[in-house]
Amino acid sequence: MKLIPGGVCAAQGFLANGIHCGIRKNKSKRDLALIFSEVPATAAAVYTTNLVKGAPLAVTRRHLSDGRAQAIICNSGNANTCNANGIEIAEQMSALLAKEMNIDAENVVVASTGVIGQPLNLEPIANGIPALVQGLGNNRSAEAAEGIMTTDTKLKEVAVSFEIGGVTCRLGGIAKGSGMIHPNMATMLVFITTDCAISSEMLQKALSSDIRNTFNMVSVDGDTSTNDMVTVLANGMAKNPCISEEGDGFATFMKALNTVTVALCRMIAGDGEGATKLLECKVDGAKDEATAKTVAKSIICSSLTKAAMFGADANWGRVFCAIGYSGADVDVNRVDVRFRSAKGEILVCKDGAGVDFSEELAKQILLEGEIEILVSLNSGDACATAWGCDLTYDYVKINGDYRT
Amino acid sequence: MKLIPGGVCAAQGFLANGIHCGIRKNKSKRDLALIFSEVPATAAAVYTTNLVKGAPLAVTRRHLSDGRAQAIICNSGNANTCNANGIEIAEQMSALLAKEMNIDAENVVVASTGVIGQPLNLEPIANGIPALVQGLGNNRSAEAAEGIMTTDTKLKEVAVSFEIGGVTCRLGGIAKGSGMIHPNMATMLVFITTDCAISSEMLQKALSSDIRNTFNMVSVDGDTSTNDMVTVLANGMAKNPCISEEGDGFATFMKALNTVTVALCRMIAGDGEGATKLLECKVDGAKDEATAKTVAKSIICSSLTKAAMFGADANWGRVFCAIGYSGADVDVNRVDVRFRSAKGEILVCKDGAGVDFSEELAKQILLEGEIEILVSLNSGDACATAWGCDLTYDYVKINGDYRT
Repeated sequence: MKLIPGGVCAAQGFLANGIHCGIRKNKSKRDLALIFSEVPATAAAVYTTNLVKGAPLAVTRRHLSDGRAQAIICNSGNANTCNANGIEIAEQMSALLAKEMNIDAENVVVASTGVIGQPLNLEPIANGIPALVQGLGNNRSAEAAEGIMTTDTKLKEVAVSFEIGGVTCRLGGIAKGSGMIHPNMATMLVFITTDCAISSEMLQKALSSDIRNTFNMVSVDGDTSTNDMVTVLANGMAKNPCISEEGDGFATFMKALNTVTVALCRMIAGDGEGATKLLECKVDGAKDEATAKTVAKSIICSSLTKAAMFGADANWGRVFCAIGYSGADVDVNRVDVRFRSAKGEILVCKDGAGVDFSEELAKQILLEGEIEILVSLNSGDACATAWGCDLTYDYVKINGDYRT
Repeated sequence: MKLIPGGVCAAQGFLANGIHCGIRKNKSKRDLALIFSEVPATAAAVYTTNLVKGAPLAVTRRHLSDGRAQAIICNSGNANTCNANGIEIAEQMSALLAKEMNIDAENVVVASTGVIGQPLNLEPIANGIPALVQGLGNNRSAEAAEGIMTTDTKLKEVAVSFEIGGVTCRLGGIAKGSGMIHPNMATMLVFITTDCAISSEMLQKALSSDIRNTFNMVSVDGDTSTNDMVTVLANGMAKNPCISEEGDGFATFMKALNTVTVALCRMIAGDGEGATKLLECKVDGAKDEATAKTVAKSIICSSLTKAAMFGADANWGRVFCAIGYSGADVDVNRVDVRFRSAKGEILVCKDGAGVDFSEELAKQILLEGEIEILVSLNSGDACATAWGCDLTYDYVKINGDYRT
């Protein structure tokens, strides 16, 4: 497993592009992205569990019912959700792209991200599609990644190479996600491409399994979006022996997928709206995985813990309190809590009670940009990791007047 | 039902006081409070469901096992939670007070609020108790209310008078609560006194029933405290026919209790840490009460909704999104959303889709200090109300460095 450059264009046969077409007022921000496979690809996706679902998700779900896709089009600046004619607009986006590229509209994945409840104007998209298609290149993953950003401050892309049956394959992804991040069974906008040959059943299985430990363990603000979606396209151009059942090849593919999704999770959490710190909560010693996950996510979601981390305040009582109300069955008298970063590691709570510790060292550790909150439940062997970020003035600022 | 002054001293036979004894560094802040009934009273209490429970709660639970109490002692500045000797300290607080007042230590309710995980020094409490007792008065509810405040900015007390069997009774309460507010089955620190004669069974029944629609429907930050507690003392000095079963008298008592608890809920939510606005979310048209409550609480807890309210931004998509991920079974295509305040009412979402509305009027409405978020599910007759506050820069500031 090797990290390589190229994002969604790292895999053979994938092209991408991103342009400013005019949905967003700021002309320096790209607002329309395209990912294209030279040949039709196997496709899998998972979607938000919010009962309010963006119109593009309904259209994409229908288009992916045959497990095949060739292109992904996504705009930012407007979520095309809770509009009277949302489905129609999403269908037209697909149709316009399909016509321009001479492909089947049923092979188009369509996505939108931005404000909810305002009609999406199709005109700038229709006008922009020719330039979007013309500019496609196998080195333009970054432009596509920019095109799907909203309040994100950092571009999110990653890719790996790996071998299946002696053949080198590649898998890469781009993501957006900064606010309204609390995925549940699916998540944010993430587009992953691979040239690995894999059946659509195994691709869906790999994705559905992976997200339970990756995107579903990320929270920026506890708000589950209406438009979360993760899509993987696999075009088989690496010409490896096609993965059609569990075994070594599938295990390697799962590992590649996990390497990319964990990297994207860290990027999304670290770039949470207003965030100054990435928080990684690792829980071990749980009696089962569900307990470990519940505890890890409860801590990552605690506003009080998040604010304390912003202030580099080793207020472990906030962490301990979040363990207690998580709903998990935990023996609180066995719990140890540590903080860790590049500056070192410090034990702050042992067997459920505070210990003497150096406030100075704790401060040094917590002033870093990446903080690990380590919790040992000392009641078993299961563990889990969750990702989040601190709660800052800027989160409030960004969301106090999001629509203007 | 008439609102009257006096807080916990409104009911006959109740005295109170609050002093600075030295737990808190700031000498202008009272940090020790006492409420005393001239005769032993019937008592009922509910406690936090957090698995991590403050030591004082364990001691109080034991002391109230006979349904009787005569005094309540509470310090602020330190929660006496997650300390090796917390139980011992709480027992000693009770014993010291009992000795000074010549009452049974088993009749003392003990409570603490403040930082978790730091040993509570008994010395200032021991030294302060004589002055605390000496200063008791039937007009010092406000001093007691001040003594239990932490990050609260406003004193919270309220009282009502009502008639049972032609006899005038009084019931009043004080509360503290500003951060770590997301009660679950019990809540915050609330002390209620009444001179109404009522059996301990009916008193507990009244309290346990009432909090389901009052304190359990309040959230400031989604963090359920380790030290939440509501206690009611009823000393019977009004000499009404004792309430020992359901009927008109119990119904009147429930109404009096509810008037006081709803008023305290509004005070707590409106004084949430850093809050500039009280949010009251009223959900109607639900198929059942559980659905209405789940939806109301999901909205009140949404960080994005809270930040939008801070910015007076009519971003109803945040409200709608929170309905969708609440977990309640809702037909989102039937949902209407309105905002209301002293400045008027505005419909922003009808049948699950945005409507044209005046942004100017919406802004005027949302700039007020008390905002109602009105949600009609149009699928039945059940309704619920939840209380919360906006998410502000000051919430982050207060909790970024809580311990210093």
